[in-house]
Amino acid sequence: MTIIDSRITDLQVYPLAFSDPPLLNAAGVHEPLALRTLVRLQAGDVVAWGEGRGDALPADVVPALCEAVLGLDVFATSRIEAAVDTVLRRLRPDLGAQARLVTFAPIEVAALDAQGKLLERPVSELLGGALRDRVDYSAYLFFKWAGHLDGEPDEWGEAMDPDGIVAQAKLLVDRYGFRSFKLKAGALHPDIEVESLRALAEAFPGMPLRIDPNGAWTHQTALEVAHRTDGLLEYLEDPVLGIDGMSRIHAETGVPLATNMCVVETAHLRPAVRADAVQVLLSDHHYWGGLRRTKELAAICEAMDIGVSMHSNSHLGISLAAMTHVAAAIPNLSHACDTHFPWNRADDVVTEGGIEIVDGAVTVPTGPGLGVEVNLDRVAELHERYVESGHRTRDDGGYMRRWDPTFTDARPRY
Amino acid sequence: MTIIDSRITDLQVYPLAFSDPPLLNAAGVHEPLALRTLVRLQAGDVVAWGEGRGDALPADVVPALCEAVLGLDVFATSRIEAAVDTVLRRLRPDLGAQARLVTFAPIEVAALDAQGKLLERPVSELLGGALRDRVDYSAYLFFKWAGHLDGEPDEWGEAMDPDGIVAQAKLLVDRYGFRSFKLKAGALHPDIEVESLRALAEAFPGMPLRIDPNGAWTHQTALEVAHRTDGLLEYLEDPVLGIDGMSRIHAETGVPLATNMCVVETAHLRPAVRADAVQVLLSDHHYWGGLRRTKELAAICEAMDIGVSMHSNSHLGISLAAMTHVAAAIPNLSHACDTHFPWNRADDVVTEGGIEIVDGAVTVPTGPGLGVEVNLDRVAELHERYVESGHRTRDDGGYMRRWDPTFTDARPRY
Repeated sequence: MTIIDSRITDLQVYPLAFSDPPLLNAAGVHEPLALRTLVRLQAGDVVAWGEGRGDALPADVVPALCEAVLGLDVFATSRIEAAVDTVLRRLRPDLGAQARLVTFAPIEVAALDAQGKLLERPVSELLGGALRDRVDYSAYLFFKWAGHLDGEPDEWGEAMDPDGIVAQAKLLVDRYGFRSFKLKAGALHPDIEVESLRALAEAFPGMPLRIDPNGAWTHQTALEVAHRTDGLLEYLEDPVLGIDGMSRIHAETGVPLATNMCVVETAHLRPAVRADAVQVLLSDHHYWGGLRRTKELAAICEAMDIGVSMHSNSHLGISLAAMTHVAAAIPNLSHACDTHFPWNRADDVVTEGGIEIVDGAVTVPTGPGLGVEVNLDRVAELHERYVESGHRTRDDGGYMRRWDPTFTDARPRY
Repeated sequence: MTIIDSRITDLQVYPLAFSDPPLLNAAGVHEPLALRTLVRLQAGDVVAWGEGRGDALPADVVPALCEAVLGLDVFATSRIEAAVDTVLRRLRPDLGAQARLVTFAPIEVAALDAQGKLLERPVSELLGGALRDRVDYSAYLFFKWAGHLDGEPDEWGEAMDPDGIVAQAKLLVDRYGFRSFKLKAGALHPDIEVESLRALAEAFPGMPLRIDPNGAWTHQTALEVAHRTDGLLEYLEDPVLGIDGMSRIHAETGVPLATNMCVVETAHLRPAVRADAVQVLLSDHHYWGGLRRTKELAAICEAMDIGVSMHSNSHLGISLAAMTHVAAAIPNLSHACDTHFPWNRADDVVTEGGIEIVDGAVTVPTGPGLGVEVNLDRVAELHERYVESGHRTRDDGGYMRRWDPTFTDARPRY
């Protein structure tokens, strides 16, 4: 009965490679190139886009995925999810539930972009409507080298101590107006990392702070850091690995704990709730199965009395738009979202000025669908870099070992 | 930027009264008239409908609610929810979170009906798309009198023993093709109720069965019934009251327990999960805050490893359509839904033949919005009955006391 034809007539996948600074973390250090996958979907007379992780759509399953979704209606996202799931269970039985949702996510985003474009409505309205006009993001601070191995110093400068972190924070605040900070930790000795937090608190009085060592700390170190940062933090993110470990830290300190590590798929939620292991969940539509699933995840958190914030990996502007739409539609979003966007913005695929962080927030796009335009020349250029570089998997540890052959990302480290 | 004007320009509320047979339950017996509320919403050039509980929109708050939602966009359901919530917190601070969602629910359904009509898409597509073309419903069996006090015997006949229940089941199966049964219990002695289940199992071999005493049993009785019905039931519904009581019954018997009593709002979910009190949640969009919230509730259940079925109160065809759309869009719907529809169908407000139960299922409407047309003459007639009858609140216990002055609905009773 519908007047608009909304079946998928074409699906193209573009793996991309783009510049990334040498950002340190518990796994090693970011390589010169980061990877991402774009999905271009055609339905009726609109072209829609989704962005996913670098490993979202492995080349060997793309033909079967395209065949499975062609002809499906972009409004039937649950059926598209089931179709993707069926293909992956058959061709890649090694993949778990989360990996299958990683594949579905950019397709779902593209389907919602298509829905919005067909209906001339922003994606936020397909999710119950925006509850805020702007979504706050946090400045994502990293310990970093001055430049890449074999490379020139980059524009960001070195940050291997508290002074370097404060200088980096000032740069990010000047450029983007951020009003809260997240410090990626687990890279240096906890003393330096805690001192860096203190320096931030002194340089930016009253601005919310968080720290995330990605599970690099022992139980004892986590307790000590919790003690030494008492009253300084919004929350402590993944101080240790695993639901049991997190549960013990929370029970012993009372500090709110956030995670994007011990709860990363549906099956982890019930055990985490039963163990009271997590007080803030860092959602991420790229591995929770898209924007609708992320909104549902927020409802789960509301029901389970868990706060909601948002995790980020290195990403481009299509994802920033998608993150902003869903964040705007989540009633119980309790903290500013994470984003790597400033680190990768120079290579962005959204047309210049299409999506920006201003005063530490992104205005929710009001145009049809995701509300951003894609720079096709840039997509072609980054796809070319992907092809020519031969870079296919992220390996922060391998890159770190080029500098320090003894490096290992075994955790806990400190 | 949107081309379609989708702001709410009018909201009308129609309380209705319609015929109901004398159905017994732990609270007493259904009165001759049941109550329901229709919401008629106008947005742009479409008229949309929602149906709620009889107490959904108390007359004293209707003017303020209308004022609060007029001008809001039907796509901004989260903002409409917030507006309704704000009005009720101000005017009716006595109402809890659930009661506020009871008010919002029919407005949300009407908003989704309007969205669908504006976009020429069925409501199921606004919820991620139908995953099934037909939704199964269960025959809802009741112990009942032959007719109302002071009235003639009705077409359904008396059912006060196992033979009566089997005859009723046959009638419902003949007319509607049901393929599973739910027996409302807690009305007679548990021996009669368990014998009625056995008689059903014998008369309809292999057809799924459930029993629901609405918490009328003691811990000991519930254990005995669980023992005597071992292997006979899909699940046991609310054998006892409260999360603690349910948790103990499940721990001691291993029988899957369903509820629409101990988990009826968000705040109950976490305690129920932590106590493992519920294995199947009976969703109901009329008090969980509409269709989107019900889909989110299903996601919560999926995450918490709880099955999903659907609860029913006496209702009309607009709700049957709404229930069918959301049930079709819930991936993890694990059981046939409950419905009172056959008991009230003769007075339905949907145009004849607009929504039907055939072979125990309702075909998901594919027309715009809810996909049903409203019989305005019938609405006027039932509203007139509401006005003239003076009937304003449901009182199953009071009506039962006209027959048995010693009746009390104190629970546990048996």
